[in-house]
Amino acid sequence: MLDEFPCALTCGLPSALEAMGEKWSFLILRGALAGTRHFEDFQSTLGIARNILANRLARLVEKGIMVREPMSCDRRKVEYRLTEKGNELAPVMIALRQWGEKWECGVPSVPTLADRRDGQPIQQIRILSHDGRALGLCDLVWIYPDEIAPVGGVEEIAA
Amino acid sequence: MLDEFPCALTCGLPSALEAMGEKWSFLILRGALAGTRHFEDFQSTLGIARNILANRLARLVEKGIMVREPMSCDRRKVEYRLTEKGNELAPVMIALRQWGEKWECGVPSVPTLADRRDGQPIQQIRILSHDGRALGLCDLVWIYPDEIAPVGGVEEIAA
Repeated sequence: MLDEFPCALTCGLPSALEAMGEKWSFLILRGALAGTRHFEDFQSTLGIARNILANRLARLVEKGIMVREPMSCDRRKVEYRLTEKGNELAPVMIALRQWGEKWECGVPSVPTLADRRDGQPIQQIRILSHDGRALGLCDLVWIYPDEIAPVGGVEEIAA
Repeated sequence: MLDEFPCALTCGLPSALEAMGEKWSFLILRGALAGTRHFEDFQSTLGIARNILANRLARLVEKGIMVREPMSCDRRKVEYRLTEKGNELAPVMIALRQWGEKWECGVPSVPTLADRRDGQPIQQIRILSHDGRALGLCDLVWIYPDEIAPVGGVEEIAA
């Protein structure tokens, strides 16, 4: 477990949740990451009420996570696509999916994600040290900006 | 962007969201990861209504993400602690916090998480290949269990 701290001075999590913070937004993003582009397709694959879907898509667009654009082939139709900001939610989504596989479903998700280059499944999403060691909660401490150790850190000072 | 696929056969994400799926649960988990244990402390740090907090804590206990136990020092008091299942949500929470830092706050979270061993901040949470290369969405494909390449994969076959 981490050491206690009284409260975060600034923390990206509440504002991230403000942008995302409920089930349907995550499921819309899952669809978008899997290539869904059109209102009707989101509606039919998710089984979500049309007014809720419209509301959540509008919010994701407003937050800059998706863009709403006329299709180049038929400008009467619109499509929803992820922005760079939206794409960068992929690690969150994949980590949550992997957790659900292990702790809720009990079976690996199908299909699964693999590296295009060699067809091997991706790693579990983990917390890594700056030099790539996997860290558990016991290995973590909270630090303030003025406490960041010089590279080499404790060992260098001790040497 | 990933190749399209019609719909997931099984996917850990919906069930993960069923267990987690709204803002207050994530914020309670953030508190728990930072060492908060008591109802009154969750209530005062989050500013959440008591009935909503009681409901969300009961749900997290029911889902096996937290446990509710009498304190060893005073058995009239109870504390809420993360289970192993709850602790394993840390990569999700940290990835979402990092995303919020970059895209919503625009400043690094304070305090930040570091490796206890050398005091260096942890890496960004990323998608990694089986051999540790960072992968973007363009590098990913969906595969089914019978499509998993033997280790060595494409290159070995091509050789």
